[in-house]
Amino acid sequence: MQKEDLLATQARITPYIHRTPILTSRLLNAIAGAELFFKCENFQRMGAFKMRGAMNAVLALSEEQKTRGVVTHSSGNFAQALTLAAQNIGVKAYIVMPENAPQVKKDAVRGYGGQIIESASNPIAREEAAARVEQETGAYFIHPSNDLDVILGQGTAAMELLEDHPDLAYIFSPVGGGGLIGGTALAAHFFGQNCKVIGGEPFAADDAYRSLQSGQIESNDNTNTLADGLRTQLGDINFPIIRQYVDQIIRVEETEITAAMKLIWERLKIIVEPSSAVALAALLREKEMYSGQKIGVILSGGNVDLGNLPF
Amino acid sequence: MQKEDLLATQARITPYIHRTPILTSRLLNAIAGAELFFKCENFQRMGAFKMRGAMNAVLALSEEQKTRGVVTHSSGNFAQALTLAAQNIGVKAYIVMPENAPQVKKDAVRGYGGQIIESASNPIAREEAAARVEQETGAYFIHPSNDLDVILGQGTAAMELLEDHPDLAYIFSPVGGGGLIGGTALAAHFFGQNCKVIGGEPFAADDAYRSLQSGQIESNDNTNTLADGLRTQLGDINFPIIRQYVDQIIRVEETEITAAMKLIWERLKIIVEPSSAVALAALLREKEMYSGQKIGVILSGGNVDLGNLPF
Repeated sequence: MQKEDLLATQARITPYIHRTPILTSRLLNAIAGAELFFKCENFQRMGAFKMRGAMNAVLALSEEQKTRGVVTHSSGNFAQALTLAAQNIGVKAYIVMPENAPQVKKDAVRGYGGQIIESASNPIAREEAAARVEQETGAYFIHPSNDLDVILGQGTAAMELLEDHPDLAYIFSPVGGGGLIGGTALAAHFFGQNCKVIGGEPFAADDAYRSLQSGQIESNDNTNTLADGLRTQLGDINFPIIRQYVDQIIRVEETEITAAMKLIWERLKIIVEPSSAVALAALLREKEMYSGQKIGVILSGGNVDLGNLPF
Repeated sequence: MQKEDLLATQARITPYIHRTPILTSRLLNAIAGAELFFKCENFQRMGAFKMRGAMNAVLALSEEQKTRGVVTHSSGNFAQALTLAAQNIGVKAYIVMPENAPQVKKDAVRGYGGQIIESASNPIAREEAAARVEQETGAYFIHPSNDLDVILGQGTAAMELLEDHPDLAYIFSPVGGGGLIGGTALAAHFFGQNCKVIGGEPFAADDAYRSLQSGQIESNDNTNTLADGLRTQLGDINFPIIRQYVDQIIRVEETEITAAMKLIWERLKIIVEPSSAVALAALLREKEMYSGQKIGVILSGGNVDLGNLPF
């Protein structure tokens, strides 16, 4: 991976994505004892950073691949992101979703012109369903987080953050499947001035923390966390990047996630999903370590069910 | 009132307030059938447009008045706004609040250095309490909405909107005590290109609608609306401005307020209070009238109790 790969990615996707705002809050600075810069990917198209990686992945397709379409499996933001990204350049998207996925998410995918393939709600069934679509249609499989083009795309959020604030000492990011923190770590390495990347992860799905300890990809026996975007595990493409470039991962309790989410809603007056709050929760848990520093915090998305809030 | 009064107000308060962002949403445009520009006063200091008028009022004080302080009665955003405005220039603030005001609001006022005087929770008691403070301390009384400096200050939100989008055909504003819509109407008159101002008001507190019909200030027998910022009635200073410069007032049902608030939260990914949603609710109720137009919508504030949401 080189600096140029990220620069090329940024140039490629810029026409299709929002440059999201960076918000600050005197009160949150006072609470953290540091100077915080919140990168607001909740304002990204379709409401999450996933649009960046999805857009980069579809733009990397060959002309021949474009005629056959793309396929992924996701019940979350990547389903919408890949569908919208594909629609932007006139490519067909097949999305494998669990049969029990919320109607509102299915509607959103269909609204962007995606074709939904239902599968049973377990990892093996969804992978088999995606493989079947690949075989039958020739569509190109794009993984939500373990794909190099996706990882590079997600890294552009941190690139923008560092363009505006080159002297950040740290960037905090949530850790889910590893796409966002992997890209963030690459961006910080190539464009930061000794900028360290810290991951936030729920204790209830701490596979990445354990993976860094054991040196191999660990999985979660169960994932009972309200940060539903962070239940997935790392992959063989992003794990080496994370091992090399991420400084550490801080685990947080569910109550800390809820408290951080409430702080963001109340003080920044913006809607972020629970997964987004995990980065701030991690910082606040260990705030003595980061006192007085300039710190970027990536708020990953804002797609929440308002009828089912944790407070 | 002259154009120069608004320009002088803007110049005076600019160092103390945020120039708030203006957000747009393709999806909300599609729902409304018009091109909408949301002026986000939820991102204003202390979370509401009230900071503008309060700041202008304290900056208009004479040096002698400044030494004696200011007093108001408010259980809502103006209490915090006046306290913070006064603190900015080293002036003492006395705030009459109902004894049953939420602890969080009292704490916010004290946090900005305000002195709280508790009164019984009815209009006569609070006015008497404020008059007592005036007599005992010599503090200058500033009304939350029926004060010319306050009205001019509130008008600067629409001035900013029209600076960025001079060709707006309409600006929608909520109607409470009349300070915001009065200032907005002045700004649209002096700085718009035939820009009309429309008020949104709950059916459950439709005193302004009835006042425009009868030609005299009407009150509300009861005010059972979740738009708690709009329960107050007009005053003798803002009513003539509203009669002269506001095009019409559209009343909305409580269910329409909740639906508009949910749309703003879900689509713009920002926190606004129920009163803010009344302007969009009014537009959506009569959207056939405004089809294809460029429309400013003032989102008045974002101070909500997350433990007590209507959805």
